[in-house]
Amino acid sequence: MKHQVISSRGNQHFKHLKKLNESPRYRHEVQQTILDGMHLIESYAERFGSPDSIALIEGGNLDKIASYLNEDTQVLEFPAGLFSEIAPVISPTGILASINIPHLEPSKKQNCILFLEDIQDPGNLGSILRSASASGVDLVYLSDHCADLWSPKVLRGGQGAHFHLPCIEKANFSDITKSFTGKIFATTLSGKSIFKEDLKGPVAFIFGNEGNGIHSETMQLTSHSIHIPMEKGIESLNVSAAVSICLYEKYRQEHFNV
Amino acid sequence: MKHQVISSRGNQHFKHLKKLNESPRYRHEVQQTILDGMHLIESYAERFGSPDSIALIEGGNLDKIASYLNEDTQVLEFPAGLFSEIAPVISPTGILASINIPHLEPSKKQNCILFLEDIQDPGNLGSILRSASASGVDLVYLSDHCADLWSPKVLRGGQGAHFHLPCIEKANFSDITKSFTGKIFATTLSGKSIFKEDLKGPVAFIFGNEGNGIHSETMQLTSHSIHIPMEKGIESLNVSAAVSICLYEKYRQEHFNV
Repeated sequence: MKHQVISSRGNQHFKHLKKLNESPRYRHEVQQTILDGMHLIESYAERFGSPDSIALIEGGNLDKIASYLNEDTQVLEFPAGLFSEIAPVISPTGILASINIPHLEPSKKQNCILFLEDIQDPGNLGSILRSASASGVDLVYLSDHCADLWSPKVLRGGQGAHFHLPCIEKANFSDITKSFTGKIFATTLSGKSIFKEDLKGPVAFIFGNEGNGIHSETMQLTSHSIHIPMEKGIESLNVSAAVSICLYEKYRQEHFNV
Repeated sequence: MKHQVISSRGNQHFKHLKKLNESPRYRHEVQQTILDGMHLIESYAERFGSPDSIALIEGGNLDKIASYLNEDTQVLEFPAGLFSEIAPVISPTGILASINIPHLEPSKKQNCILFLEDIQDPGNLGSILRSASASGVDLVYLSDHCADLWSPKVLRGGQGAHFHLPCIEKANFSDITKSFTGKIFATTLSGKSIFKEDLKGPVAFIFGNEGNGIHSETMQLTSHSIHIPMEKGIESLNVSAAVSICLYEKYRQEHFNV
């Protein structure tokens, strides 16, 4: 472990972390990102070992993460003012890590696939990945206009899902669905109730943008439309709520309805 | 309809709308709030008639909302610069309304009750109310430290749920649960799987804060603990996802499993 106290904005580590926090393009270029808070860092370390570097607020402590670090890990300590400039949220947790973006190999299993088209709210995307990972989704494809998968906000919402769930960005849904042999569902206002549909076996779900739903060309790729029943003048659900209901209905049918 | 073009920050309507947008205390004092965008305004008007006032960006149009307005409705037109100062989001939709906060009378029916303790993210709270209204929840109780129910952000997340679902703020959970005769559930890591639990008939669910969960004293008020099964190193779901899964499992059992 290499320990260093940094007090200048001119320092290269400071500049690097600040750019990782702020610039999607820079994250993509260097294939690194920032994890905010002990929980996320621990989730990463349990799976992949030491982060590239740890940034601590002055006087902060390594706590549960110490055992994962090795002799190459940079531990960087910053005074509170500087730390707040590299931290993704207003109330920083006092510990950050920079990591190399991991590439998870998709398994051959394709029992549940998720297609996300233009999900733009980072909180929604993170929450979707969390439910997807928890309910055993095998693979997630993201369209070109989704929020940046590896942004600190999406990572925060995902709470570690990124480290278990293979995700493929900028995916061409049309090519991929052609070779998928299971049912392909989208939610619509008029489809069959999800609670009457058989969701067992290989299934893909396509979900669309928060405001605009699924593009009409993308809708052509589906084989079945399903509907989440709704009462009292509500026409739609938050996309992360809708995804969670669909994924857990499949989970229920396969695990509790055999 | 009284039409007025406003170009000064000193104007009383401008000041009123700006304060409604920014100050929870002011909203509470005058018992008014702001609706952002045609969809929300329409949902309100369908249920309660004309808003107190409509604010339009210069050259904007009343469109679908016109038929709901009456001779007392103030229609206020603002140049883009001023409009952006009273609009809750960065890309304003060009139409706002100020409304008197409606008080919905709870029905006698208590088949599904929701208790929300310290849900602090406005997006989460809005999304929860949307799923609750859609799945037929009868009544929602909110603890003292939830996000402001009538803030523009929570209203935006709720997408009209506020106008159909009776909600009681600053509720004393302890007193209320004493007189509730149904099962009272909380989600825990060790409870019975929700998919094995009988959720038919009068039921209450208690959900806690995003980071800290349910207070231990509040946990004492529950009669049953349930668990949403999770795979692959994920320990919890986003609270709005968890609420949606639980409410829709009750809905499924009552409507599709008879």
